[in-house]
Amino acid sequence: MTHRPWRTLSRTTLLSRLPWLEVGTETVELPDGRVVEDYLWLDHGDFVNVVALTAQGDVICLRSYRHGPREVSLQFPAGLMEPGEEPLAAAKRELLEETGYTASRWLPLGRFCLDSNWGGAWMHTFLAQGAVPQQAADDGDLEDIEVFLLPLAETKERVLSGEVKLLTHVAAFSLAMMSLERSGDRNSD
Amino acid sequence: MTHRPWRTLSRTTLLSRLPWLEVGTETVELPDGRVVEDYLWLDHGDFVNVVALTAQGDVICLRSYRHGPREVSLQFPAGLMEPGEEPLAAAKRELLEETGYTASRWLPLGRFCLDSNWGGAWMHTFLAQGAVPQQAADDGDLEDIEVFLLPLAETKERVLSGEVKLLTHVAAFSLAMMSLERSGDRNSD
Repeated sequence: MTHRPWRTLSRTTLLSRLPWLEVGTETVELPDGRVVEDYLWLDHGDFVNVVALTAQGDVICLRSYRHGPREVSLQFPAGLMEPGEEPLAAAKRELLEETGYTASRWLPLGRFCLDSNWGGAWMHTFLAQGAVPQQAADDGDLEDIEVFLLPLAETKERVLSGEVKLLTHVAAFSLAMMSLERSGDRNSD
Repeated sequence: MTHRPWRTLSRTTLLSRLPWLEVGTETVELPDGRVVEDYLWLDHGDFVNVVALTAQGDVICLRSYRHGPREVSLQFPAGLMEPGEEPLAAAKRELLEETGYTASRWLPLGRFCLDSNWGGAWMHTFLAQGAVPQQAADDGDLEDIEVFLLPLAETKERVLSGEVKLLTHVAAFSLAMMSLERSGDRNSD
């Protein structure tokens, strides 16, 4: 089956709270000629997520209150990309700023759109290996953030038991586990 | 470290496009007493995602153009919860409506907040096993949707090679793989 893209005929902005968020609507034409008015679009700003492992196989974890879920969550280094910044550069910067670690090997795991219908933002996610402490972590801006190491197997258990409340973080971690499992399969061939 | 929640002191609505989206700001008080004005909140509506396997170990896949990423994406059954609907009921309904399948075993994999800062929505994700065809799938509303079965190993490869462009879908699938891997580990103990 051929899947043809929709065509945007016009676009308006309803709400602008730059640099954080813009919301608007567009008029779109479907491949069969139907025209849909008032289809929403969102723009949040693209961001990166990093799952970083030390040489000993520990995962660099963070924990803080997050106001999105209104809950405390286990999480991983992440943050907004700066204007003009490449995803890998943003990932390295966020790992260093949030945790004080650098890493020797970086594997991009893909880019994923936050909202299937409206766009919103792209998340770029990375697996970093060979992480070593380099400097003190910056304090959080608004949240008090704990940084700590957890063995990989224990991190998986905590993720499966629901300690990560954030969709972006559970996606980055689970995808990193799929990727590690595949490279394990290949290495044992 | 104790992580105390923020307190919402007041809340305004900036944009209302019900039943799809509301956006507003709130004034929040941090645990250290600082007050932050104009902190954004979003409300998209909660939704479900389902990774469904047949008894033969095939994954029920969908493929269509999605206007969020402006790309064609491999994906899995998913959709908005209806008002008052329980997550499991919504998951069963979406699987049946989108694919025509029912499933005999349902495992909840957790609930995850779409936007770490602003909330947005909760995604409830499920692993369904023993899926069997029951009726014809409904046609898509706006998109032309293909429904097909793929072997589990091939689905993993396609996900890792970037055929899923949607964050919610890659999260649901990778998490389901972590859960299956754990139950495999336990069964082989």
